[in-house]
Amino acid sequence: MIQIPRGTQDILPKDTYKWQFIEDRLHEIAQNYNYKEIRTPVFESTELFVRGVGGSTDIVNKEMYTFMDKGDRSMTLKPEGTAPVVRSYIENKMQHDVNQPVKVYYLAPMFRYERRQKGRYRQFVQFGIEAIGVEDPLIDVEVISMLMHIYQSFGLKNLKLYINSIGDQDSRAAYNQALVDHFRPSIDEFCSDCQTRIDTNPMRILDCKKDRDHALVQNAPRIYDYLNEESKIYFEKVTENLDALGISYEIDYNLVRGLDYYTHTAFELMSDAEGFGAITTLCGGGRYNGLLELLDGPQETGIGFALSIERLLLALEAEGIEIPEPEGIDLYICTLDAAAEATAGQLLHKLRAEGISCDMDYKHRKLKAQMKDADRKDAAFTIVLGESELKTGEVELKHMQSGETKKVSMDDLKQLSTLIEENGS
Amino acid sequence: MIQIPRGTQDILPKDTYKWQFIEDRLHEIAQNYNYKEIRTPVFESTELFVRGVGGSTDIVNKEMYTFMDKGDRSMTLKPEGTAPVVRSYIENKMQHDVNQPVKVYYLAPMFRYERRQKGRYRQFVQFGIEAIGVEDPLIDVEVISMLMHIYQSFGLKNLKLYINSIGDQDSRAAYNQALVDHFRPSIDEFCSDCQTRIDTNPMRILDCKKDRDHALVQNAPRIYDYLNEESKIYFEKVTENLDALGISYEIDYNLVRGLDYYTHTAFELMSDAEGFGAITTLCGGGRYNGLLELLDGPQETGIGFALSIERLLLALEAEGIEIPEPEGIDLYICTLDAAAEATAGQLLHKLRAEGISCDMDYKHRKLKAQMKDADRKDAAFTIVLGESELKTGEVELKHMQSGETKKVSMDDLKQLSTLIEENGS
Repeated sequence: MIQIPRGTQDILPKDTYKWQFIEDRLHEIAQNYNYKEIRTPVFESTELFVRGVGGSTDIVNKEMYTFMDKGDRSMTLKPEGTAPVVRSYIENKMQHDVNQPVKVYYLAPMFRYERRQKGRYRQFVQFGIEAIGVEDPLIDVEVISMLMHIYQSFGLKNLKLYINSIGDQDSRAAYNQALVDHFRPSIDEFCSDCQTRIDTNPMRILDCKKDRDHALVQNAPRIYDYLNEESKIYFEKVTENLDALGISYEIDYNLVRGLDYYTHTAFELMSDAEGFGAITTLCGGGRYNGLLELLDGPQETGIGFALSIERLLLALEAEGIEIPEPEGIDLYICTLDAAAEATAGQLLHKLRAEGISCDMDYKHRKLKAQMKDADRKDAAFTIVLGESELKTGEVELKHMQSGETKKVSMDDLKQLSTLIEENGS
Repeated sequence: MIQIPRGTQDILPKDTYKWQFIEDRLHEIAQNYNYKEIRTPVFESTELFVRGVGGSTDIVNKEMYTFMDKGDRSMTLKPEGTAPVVRSYIENKMQHDVNQPVKVYYLAPMFRYERRQKGRYRQFVQFGIEAIGVEDPLIDVEVISMLMHIYQSFGLKNLKLYINSIGDQDSRAAYNQALVDHFRPSIDEFCSDCQTRIDTNPMRILDCKKDRDHALVQNAPRIYDYLNEESKIYFEKVTENLDALGISYEIDYNLVRGLDYYTHTAFELMSDAEGFGAITTLCGGGRYNGLLELLDGPQETGIGFALSIERLLLALEAEGIEIPEPEGIDLYICTLDAAAEATAGQLLHKLRAEGISCDMDYKHRKLKAQMKDADRKDAAFTIVLGESELKTGEVELKHMQSGETKKVSMDDLKQLSTLIEENGS
């Protein structure tokens, strides 16, 4: 038997309503924040991610689904959404769009070949936004406001927002030098990855899971002390405006991003819900003023975040929040013989065109089994079609919850659909 | 500059509303027909398509995006949706689900490495349905009814539905033998593909684009004459019930499907809109009673169809049907200084939480440019925030279409959002 690819999942018909519910909400909130959807292909040139995500990252080194297409070009299933959006921005010269800043969102499958663990799939759905073309603390705050709004709209409570500033390019360079000075004398005590990182990406030593308890990591220089005046002012304006919005946060000086193009605001949303066991990252984001240039684009700046639907679902589960089950169908037509089945098919055809959701039995089951089926499909109304109904053309429309019935002519589609719409939902 | 993969497209922010509109409609119609969404991974084992689509097809031979994953398993980006759904049905033992038949739909990107031409992309979005677990002419009719309903709901007129029956396995075997007898003596006059087909798949000679005008194709045996009694009765019931539903169709005896697992009803929807030039297939489908067993599944039967959104968009264009542009935002807040900007950010934050779609200027533009921006964003209302508004806490809410204004306290969020909701949309 052929099986599903390892580490991926089917979303089965009984579960898709959860995804639809979350996705509808995300579309709606994005609209309220005036972000418009953008769709980029499932795969991109491998080079886009090597440059745009960074050749020194685990994503690029270990986790990408890379393949040669029939034209012998190296392609990669996208592991994240920002680089493709920026590629599209540059290629379509969106810096000249009349609407500025360019505010976009995406909702799409992403792919990472990771070790299998709970809530981690090799294909997962990411929702993310990007605001490109403005560097202003207020847009950083808008992005964080939207992020919080999303999670809070589902009723989640155990949310902890961490923010930090990495400053501008100058601040960052000064800080990197300080880290090298700090770690270099004792770098032999660190893992082999960190021994490479000190040359390629010293900030990532602070993220290292193996060396996190090393005294030198604990008392490493703080980036805040290396921010120049402009960067400090920028960061203050972000925190001031978050305060004004009533958004709680903690400053985490160790929240840094290793790649050169990250600047200023960085943030992460964590959940400390008991159901998770350990504290878990739900969403991360930040400002990436250097990314567009790195990809040969114009000198425009951007900020965004990305979250995974799978992780959001786990957070809901951890807090015991259930997504409302969808309503059942409006009408189920039971049939007593073959002639009634044909007539039922015609009636369904007409009612569906009127926007009524309805169904019948295609398995020639007995009436009792059909009524059970109607019940399972949570039908608001039922009709039983038999010889006498076909003769008179009149049916009894039964409202299942109240038990009330009403005689209606099958030809009077208008009355039938009005009755159903009024009571059905 | 890194470019988009050849043959793929970005759906840009200015265009995504078209896709959203169509997709919302498809979800809605699927719900009316009581089909539930299923989501399978973007890639599957290559073997699934080799077996489930057929090793002799162009799709499998020439058009698949196949790659080895890091576990050295051959994977393929799905070129079509039926085989994955059937794989999931079998793997999840859906034949035991209480809801029978299993009625599902999918809406997902598919991938075929085809020659580039208008309206053909190497990544495209397919919508398709499958009804598995019932063999009954009425469900075949339901599937066709839904297909017609979809296209007609967009106002398309130039639709031509073609149907045929391939009969059951016995009828099919008899017909294949007749074709071999018919073509064998003169097979040298046919293209090299057809010379292979006579042994692997004689029915596909009828589809051949190179040999379509050969006299032997023109006067080839008709499958109808080889249908056994049961198959003829099945087909008659399908056409009778289509008649009863008022769905027009033409029987096309040459409409066959080459693969062994296709049985009974086959159909295609074509457009003969002038805009297309030649007549064009919009959607195809049919019954596949042998597919589940072929994939080591239970002896269950299925029927379905698939359509591409890209092709549907072309059909709309060809008939001059425009998808309605989405409404603009509810409110745009103009600001006169930095303090007003900060206050505007707070007001936006609160209003968005109330479900109001709103925006402001982040580019520090002059009032005139901001008003232009509000106009471009089709804002239903505007507010201008300056020193005096910040002092009094009162703003003037202006309804753009009527020009009417109303003084409201910024703190009175309820009044503000009620006024906007009543008039804004």
